[in-house]
Amino acid sequence: MAFSERVSRLKSSLIRDILAAAQRPEVMSFAGGLPAERCLPAVDWSQLPAGLGQYGMSEGEPALREAIAAQARDYGLDCTADQVLVTTGSQQALDLIAKLYLDVGTPVLVEGPTYLAALQSFQFFGADCLEVSLTPEGLDLDALRLRLQERRPAFAYLIPTFQNPSGVRYSTANRAAVAALLDEFGVTLVEDEPYRELSYDGAPARPLCAQLQRSAWIHTGSLSKTLLPGLRVGYLIASPELLKPLRALKQAADLHTCRMSQWQVLQWLGSERYGRHLQEVRAFYRERRDGFAEALTRHFSELADWQIPQGGLFFWLQLKTPLDTRTLLDAALAQDVAFMPGEPFFAEPDRHPGLLRLNFSHVLPERLDTGLARLADVIRDATPTYKEL
Amino acid sequence: MAFSERVSRLKSSLIRDILAAAQRPEVMSFAGGLPAERCLPAVDWSQLPAGLGQYGMSEGEPALREAIAAQARDYGLDCTADQVLVTTGSQQALDLIAKLYLDVGTPVLVEGPTYLAALQSFQFFGADCLEVSLTPEGLDLDALRLRLQERRPAFAYLIPTFQNPSGVRYSTANRAAVAALLDEFGVTLVEDEPYRELSYDGAPARPLCAQLQRSAWIHTGSLSKTLLPGLRVGYLIASPELLKPLRALKQAADLHTCRMSQWQVLQWLGSERYGRHLQEVRAFYRERRDGFAEALTRHFSELADWQIPQGGLFFWLQLKTPLDTRTLLDAALAQDVAFMPGEPFFAEPDRHPGLLRLNFSHVLPERLDTGLARLADVIRDATPTYKEL
Repeated sequence: MAFSERVSRLKSSLIRDILAAAQRPEVMSFAGGLPAERCLPAVDWSQLPAGLGQYGMSEGEPALREAIAAQARDYGLDCTADQVLVTTGSQQALDLIAKLYLDVGTPVLVEGPTYLAALQSFQFFGADCLEVSLTPEGLDLDALRLRLQERRPAFAYLIPTFQNPSGVRYSTANRAAVAALLDEFGVTLVEDEPYRELSYDGAPARPLCAQLQRSAWIHTGSLSKTLLPGLRVGYLIASPELLKPLRALKQAADLHTCRMSQWQVLQWLGSERYGRHLQEVRAFYRERRDGFAEALTRHFSELADWQIPQGGLFFWLQLKTPLDTRTLLDAALAQDVAFMPGEPFFAEPDRHPGLLRLNFSHVLPERLDTGLARLADVIRDATPTYKEL
Repeated sequence: MAFSERVSRLKSSLIRDILAAAQRPEVMSFAGGLPAERCLPAVDWSQLPAGLGQYGMSEGEPALREAIAAQARDYGLDCTADQVLVTTGSQQALDLIAKLYLDVGTPVLVEGPTYLAALQSFQFFGADCLEVSLTPEGLDLDALRLRLQERRPAFAYLIPTFQNPSGVRYSTANRAAVAALLDEFGVTLVEDEPYRELSYDGAPARPLCAQLQRSAWIHTGSLSKTLLPGLRVGYLIASPELLKPLRALKQAADLHTCRMSQWQVLQWLGSERYGRHLQEVRAFYRERRDGFAEALTRHFSELADWQIPQGGLFFWLQLKTPLDTRTLLDAALAQDVAFMPGEPFFAEPDRHPGLLRLNFSHVLPERLDTGLARLADVIRDATPTYKEL
């Protein structure tokens, strides 16, 4: 069986295996990034126009593109509907971006850690992913400058708002400095903001793309975290010079995104009802986050360090005694607990042991203590320091 | 702006330009492959289960995969639901297949002519497309053997049932011979059957995939031609050894296809209602085809030769005096008539002048004579023989 060379880089997805294991109802899963069932709104299809059955435009429905552009302008990103491309989930935006830029060996600048599925998609297309470390304030600016002086990446892939997995929110000063550096070196920015609306402590900052003077940019977003992931509606907004090839790539990928889904999203985006829904979702997740933080303090204070995320769906734990957290998975699953090891979120996994990502939105509060206590026990059992005590 | 090497092969789609021009309501378009508006059924969303809002499985909804497998078994293709992957239109199947097999220079065997969007997708990923001519009976078997002796393609991409653009339906004997040759040379078959159900003169034959003894295979299909293209639901069914990488590729492309669309398709597939709908659609298109054939005889008898297609949506015309039909487009559009030049359906367009594809489902019967008369005039004006008369 002769597959393409790139298939040799197609990783059997760890996420996929973990999520499959976490399907068992008895499993307490801290692994995924699924919205809580309680946060999925009931939607009404009764007004769906009949005309949407026909083929649609590759760019997306004009009215939805307008609404997405209007929302982006509210965020502070100056753009028109022409610059919007509706995608089949924001995952598809990553696929289109990879096709647009990547040959084998093309350098791409990524955060360390970064979103696992983006890393996998870029590496699948042959990218050489150059990591720049995150600090609690955003990107490590000295490291960023050094990286850019060494090699010119095809683009920088950044998640400045409630970064996945770390939860980091780039500060205002850090955003300005990163934008200036990307402009200085003429590096294209891909800014991924799926968690932007899941903000629990004040409004999110202006997109980094909006602060560029010179570099090309692609801003991506999703309705999966705030509305319904099953609709598969995401989008990208790009600087004008990128639109023509991106549209052709979208057409080649799936012609266009489901028009009924696009219509449904349009019923929400920018509406008062959507505003109320977002308020409720934020309040719900804020409470879950705070409860999770308290439970973490009870069970993990001696084991790990963490920051309280101001948005998104994850805590990012650094073990005090680093060990390869991938080796903990089987023991955790045997105790009906699932989590995401931290190593795969790095371009060089083996250099970053001792981190793990815990989702706080999914496990019911009444099962939280049981789940975290079991996970803490699994970590203690695997840690030499504790074994010796 | 440094894009990937493959972007240099991203053609500004001729189809896209023609279809855009054909959007003007006064244009009589023989260009696209859109279902007639009359054939798009009204669908009911009132029973849509709420649970479909959450993320779904990359493979597709289990019940829909069962229904697709059952339909394929009815066609004569032995398979289980495990072998089915739901895709975002069958266009996505082409994208996944290209990723799975193609590096720059990888040989792929295609029909001459073949489906334009497949050709573009394969060439975008760097395929070296090797043509084998079509005869009214199917593939030219001698040419096929010669091609396979010269080079071993990664796969053969064939459309044996109501081929697009030629309308050819491989005969039973030709199917058996092609299957035997692919088996003999151990070549994987990709069989694309989007028009299978649009059969006007008797039932379509057993899929070619079902006749392989040894080769790997991927069978693709679509609901876009018989139900609603706006849903973006297609599928592939593959031999077991291909499933693991195809699933991972699907996950990387868009996680999964819209679940609401999948649910809607499930309400139809295999139902009595769908059976009745297909009967009506076939009767409607058969009438359109027959009316088109009569109008062609009135306007094109001295200009071109053609076969009556037994299914699908297209007539394929061979001009008696070959000329590059791409050069006719502007003149035709100036007369408010759109059509598809034949050259781009070949891996080597310049070697195949004088062909054109005419869709018979879209233009209303009362405008048919006007449209075809104008197109015939455009051809006459451009043909030296007639100019001299």
